[in-house]
Amino acid sequence: MQTVDRPLALVETLRSRRQRLAQLFPQPAVLWSGGSSGRNFPANTYPFRASSHFLYFAGLPLEDAAIRLEAGKLQLFMDEATPASALWHGETPSRSEIAAAIGADDAYPLSELKNWAEGTATIAVQDAQTRLRQSHLLNRMLMPANAPQDLDAELANAIVALRSIHDELALAEIRRAISVSVAAHKAGMAATRTAKTEAHIRAAIEAVMIAHEMPPAYTSIVTIRGEVLHNAHSPHSLHSGDLLLADAGAETPTGWAADLTRTYPVSGRFLASQRAIYDVVLAAHDACIAAIQPEVEYREIHLIAARTIAAGLVDLGILRGNPTDLVEQDAHALFFPHGVGHLLGLDVHDMEDLGDRAGYAEGRGRSDRFGLCYLRLDRPLKAGMVVTIEPGFYQVPAILQDPQRRDRYRDMVNWERLAEFSDVRGIRIEDDVLVTDTGCEVLSADLPTHADEIEQLTQMQVRRTSRDTSD
Amino acid sequence: MQTVDRPLALVETLRSRRQRLAQLFPQPAVLWSGGSSGRNFPANTYPFRASSHFLYFAGLPLEDAAIRLEAGKLQLFMDEATPASALWHGETPSRSEIAAAIGADDAYPLSELKNWAEGTATIAVQDAQTRLRQSHLLNRMLMPANAPQDLDAELANAIVALRSIHDELALAEIRRAISVSVAAHKAGMAATRTAKTEAHIRAAIEAVMIAHEMPPAYTSIVTIRGEVLHNAHSPHSLHSGDLLLADAGAETPTGWAADLTRTYPVSGRFLASQRAIYDVVLAAHDACIAAIQPEVEYREIHLIAARTIAAGLVDLGILRGNPTDLVEQDAHALFFPHGVGHLLGLDVHDMEDLGDRAGYAEGRGRSDRFGLCYLRLDRPLKAGMVVTIEPGFYQVPAILQDPQRRDRYRDMVNWERLAEFSDVRGIRIEDDVLVTDTGCEVLSADLPTHADEIEQLTQMQVRRTSRDTSD
Repeated sequence: MQTVDRPLALVETLRSRRQRLAQLFPQPAVLWSGGSSGRNFPANTYPFRASSHFLYFAGLPLEDAAIRLEAGKLQLFMDEATPASALWHGETPSRSEIAAAIGADDAYPLSELKNWAEGTATIAVQDAQTRLRQSHLLNRMLMPANAPQDLDAELANAIVALRSIHDELALAEIRRAISVSVAAHKAGMAATRTAKTEAHIRAAIEAVMIAHEMPPAYTSIVTIRGEVLHNAHSPHSLHSGDLLLADAGAETPTGWAADLTRTYPVSGRFLASQRAIYDVVLAAHDACIAAIQPEVEYREIHLIAARTIAAGLVDLGILRGNPTDLVEQDAHALFFPHGVGHLLGLDVHDMEDLGDRAGYAEGRGRSDRFGLCYLRLDRPLKAGMVVTIEPGFYQVPAILQDPQRRDRYRDMVNWERLAEFSDVRGIRIEDDVLVTDTGCEVLSADLPTHADEIEQLTQMQVRRTSRDTSD
Repeated sequence: MQTVDRPLALVETLRSRRQRLAQLFPQPAVLWSGGSSGRNFPANTYPFRASSHFLYFAGLPLEDAAIRLEAGKLQLFMDEATPASALWHGETPSRSEIAAAIGADDAYPLSELKNWAEGTATIAVQDAQTRLRQSHLLNRMLMPANAPQDLDAELANAIVALRSIHDELALAEIRRAISVSVAAHKAGMAATRTAKTEAHIRAAIEAVMIAHEMPPAYTSIVTIRGEVLHNAHSPHSLHSGDLLLADAGAETPTGWAADLTRTYPVSGRFLASQRAIYDVVLAAHDACIAAIQPEVEYREIHLIAARTIAAGLVDLGILRGNPTDLVEQDAHALFFPHGVGHLLGLDVHDMEDLGDRAGYAEGRGRSDRFGLCYLRLDRPLKAGMVVTIEPGFYQVPAILQDPQRRDRYRDMVNWERLAEFSDVRGIRIEDDVLVTDTGCEVLSADLPTHADEIEQLTQMQVRRTSRDTSD
């Protein structure tokens, strides 16, 4: 992997990306990196994150920069650091040094961009200040990234085609993010039996990322209340009998993400009820991965997860009926209400700034079915795509206590039997999977999924120095 | 301290704050909390931080909420969570529960705010989306927070008067933030001798904050290149002979900040040259703290630091001349180019969103002197203020290699002698200090400053479990 980290590989990769862009979209395009946003006052900013589309073609997280792409050529627009900046932020590379590092054909101050902006396509960035500047320089209305018009929409389509299929450098970066995330999850597991609160485990996980100069790619979910799907806070104390759900992934300095979830017992041992459900979720996870290959519809992978979970819950006596029929009625979604996964790349939900343009094949849209509406990806798989596989089981009060749903699924659910699994609030198992020519590769295979191995990792309880914890 | 954490204390404190506001500013005011900002796509947001002015009067970090203050009354405007939100984010308190928790007199949906906004004063928040909504609802142009007009400027003045002098609840929160930050710095010191990179120490420091559910109040500076004053990255390997500068502070969940810096030897032992300069900086730190009491000008505290550093450098043979004269010529600023500190509160540079309105007494402005222009606070001190005291010594190439400066200070600097201190790149010692009726209290006194004690803490190298590290 070190070979692709050579600057030459970056230059070559970026050239190849823009040449492929030129084939799909021959018109000129300008992509902005965006600027940092003030948190509570202007000088106290959130850590800067460059726009993913910019990162894909510029390779470096430059702040307040823009690139113009046309016919395979790259023009870089950015200002040199001011002398005062050297006092506060140190010496930084010059524009020409950066231009050389990314193989730009030309480099100009930002003020020159106005002479090159007319008639170009673009994609709106996230920060509102830069969006205003985009609109001003292009001298036209700019729609949000999820609703581009005309040329901008064509550019978005071309970028989706490129970014969906990862090149060698992209995969090397994703593997780096996954490698650190695997170490982070193992540190979280090792911390579990001695940790007193969810936040202690979150600290153990994120410390590994910080030690590698990688921020979390998204807000970590580290919770004993796994049934709250996007639970951003970790206030609870841990007790024997709790299951800890940890959904956390690192982001490399050039923006590539990992996205991994494991669920493990605080005590180091699953209760029998927890183990039974865990194995149902794991069976769904394994069945999805076994089915992944080029041309398979991802929606079908989702339905495999749904049917496997339904079948497992029938075996446990929680659901009643034929698994295929239950899934057609969305009964699985009582316990597995979200989609089985999504694209992964520079964004943890890759290209979600473009709405469903990347996730849904042309002409397709969201289902209104309870069991399908949250599916983020509905396309035939292609070699070079990276997707997450993340089935789960949850007891969400807002779903299971809903009188209409209880009535509708009255005969399909054995509520008394379900009550015997009340110690299972939420379980999810998530891996990152590369579609290959012949099937797939689980990129995160170094992080075990089997319940026995999970128990072993949570029982390690190795005494470590701070350094070891952060390694 | 636990007594002030009772909900009743929050309600009473908030009532007292708005009654005092009504005395200073009798007109109605509306303060917005702001919304979260997308990082690389809208659903992947930066962690939400409510506006500090909102937090001061509303007490809770509510997202997309507003409060209206008039004559000591509090009206809360916020929407209830949607049913879908319960699936993704769990059950959240209702508007009326929140209204009760903060002692609101009335509570309404956000759509009602338009009926209450006319003629009110406000302060612009940081996020651009909310600023647009503020302007729209008030039906007028809204200047940035550092340039308010008319009623808004009067409101800002009243808020500065209130927020500058901390009440009991504010002080309890600041003490909480400092307590966690002291533990974090100690963990960083304990990690130093076994850490391989700056990032490993940063991880040890921030893990303690995360374990306490407190984010960093600002981007931590953890670097062996302390001469880069706001060095946000930590890529360097550590080597014996390096000094590690760590400037890091936690923020409580309701927004109150700590701000602490220590500088320590990677090897566990200062070199003689490093120890000599360290003791000069510490002498400046101690002299400032000894001089703090009500009515003393903070600018005078800065000059005490400057003169103490100048005197110490004369004693070491680095500067030549009389310390008072040297400071009048700004010779100290060759090595100590920043101000000695700033206000601390809900913001690490408290109320810096208002520009210098909080930091500078009315009628005063920034000096154009090299040795004073970066001073953030120029007011007489009052009991109840919390300020940082953070003198430093740096060898900044952009300053010391500048031909004009080398010429101007030709006779005041012994450049040959200075070369013997080349292993001292940057040293800063920073504490948080409460001005009391009779003098001051160093709120961060639990974190030692003496070089011998610093060496002991970096030599601890205790083998700890992950839990202990995070405690």
